[in-house]
Amino acid sequence: MKGDPGVKDVKPAKAPKSEQTRTLILETALRLFQERGFDKTTMRAIAQEAGVSVGNAYYYFASKEHLVQGFYDRIGAEHAAAVREVLDKETDLETRLAGVLTCWLDIAAPYHEFAAQFFKNAADPESPLSPFSVESEPAREASIAIHREVLAGSKAKIPAELVDILPELMWLSQMGLVLYWVFDRSPERERSRRLAVRGARLTTRGVALARFRVLRPLVHEVHELFTDFLPGMAETATARKRA
Amino acid sequence: MKGDPGVKDVKPAKAPKSEQTRTLILETALRLFQERGFDKTTMRAIAQEAGVSVGNAYYYFASKEHLVQGFYDRIGAEHAAAVREVLDKETDLETRLAGVLTCWLDIAAPYHEFAAQFFKNAADPESPLSPFSVESEPAREASIAIHREVLAGSKAKIPAELVDILPELMWLSQMGLVLYWVFDRSPERERSRRLAVRGARLTTRGVALARFRVLRPLVHEVHELFTDFLPGMAETATARKRA
Repeated sequence: MKGDPGVKDVKPAKAPKSEQTRTLILETALRLFQERGFDKTTMRAIAQEAGVSVGNAYYYFASKEHLVQGFYDRIGAEHAAAVREVLDKETDLETRLAGVLTCWLDIAAPYHEFAAQFFKNAADPESPLSPFSVESEPAREASIAIHREVLAGSKAKIPAELVDILPELMWLSQMGLVLYWVFDRSPERERSRRLAVRGARLTTRGVALARFRVLRPLVHEVHELFTDFLPGMAETATARKRA
Repeated sequence: MKGDPGVKDVKPAKAPKSEQTRTLILETALRLFQERGFDKTTMRAIAQEAGVSVGNAYYYFASKEHLVQGFYDRIGAEHAAAVREVLDKETDLETRLAGVLTCWLDIAAPYHEFAAQFFKNAADPESPLSPFSVESEPAREASIAIHREVLAGSKAKIPAELVDILPELMWLSQMGLVLYWVFDRSPERERSRRLAVRGARLTTRGVALARFRVLRPLVHEVHELFTDFLPGMAETATARKRA
């Protein structure tokens, strides 16, 4: 699934009622995860609170892990819509990247408490809930596609050999920002906002330096290191080579 | 406390008996943390299991957090002793760094289970148990001093303006390795071992590239970003400027 930013992973059309039920179950689950903790919340409790049968809940989400993937997909879809404003208007790389990162912080703001509580489940790269897992691939690919567009629509000159690699490294640095945000207790997460802006500046300088040939092997090596050591990313890379 | 690797934070000499009691309390605590979890283990339970009075336990460790700092100090001291073999013998930067990192994995191996269980407490940069906290400064400084020696005793030419910065960045990348190791379930943590070796190679190439003047502002900016956004590191930097 090589990411053309315009092509989304299209699911069969659903009746509005069914979509409503799905949303209801997802929102109930997120509320319960937040109130009771992820580990202590059962599918049975989620179904009961949502007023649907347990069988119905499992029809929409095969497990609690699938609910979390549903949450990732939702955040991702909201983010993809919200970044249009900056990506359709700005051509300066730093402005585009800072906009995309800040936008993510806006979208994720209501889930901050849940994220902190949830973190220990998602930090393990082997967990299906990790952003690096095989299971998170669709959400990850959608997010990397945004970074691909950040670069492609900017005035920055990108060496051809780095076009596939830089968006993944930019996404990795976004994961660094997410990690920082999870633990950020500053009012309105203003420290995370400043980090997003500073990070965008740093990345832009890094990209500018990529025009020096002597540096490119290092960029490749950093990327290979992440690909080799983060489980889902290796599979993505293998899939890309097959494609 | 500008780090001269030769100068240790010297505490008043203790009678051997008192040192034994301190070690007994620390080892009992580590065992209980592992068996019952950090959050559920009380100082009272630790004292009871160690066969000392609660007052005595508090005399040595003012809180559970101090016990963890004691654990960090112990790992650090064992590591500092173990790296002598490689640092006194090798002059190749990559070999020195790979040796220091691999050595840490050896020292930490018995605590792997504890580390995984303990992670959620230490991952929060605001926690006194985080490696980035003000409270962890002595352990952090000792560890950075090892990286300073890795560089200083190598044949690599280090630009003067990067001499203070590179050891801190190398230590940060070690923290990346530690994070990876915490979740590593491969037999004998062999994936972490391979990451240590690959990371050492990557760092060595990065250091070699630092001879290019055009890159130095980027190195400074990466370092400033970490200093500005990780709580304890900013205080360390301030203390250094005052010194």
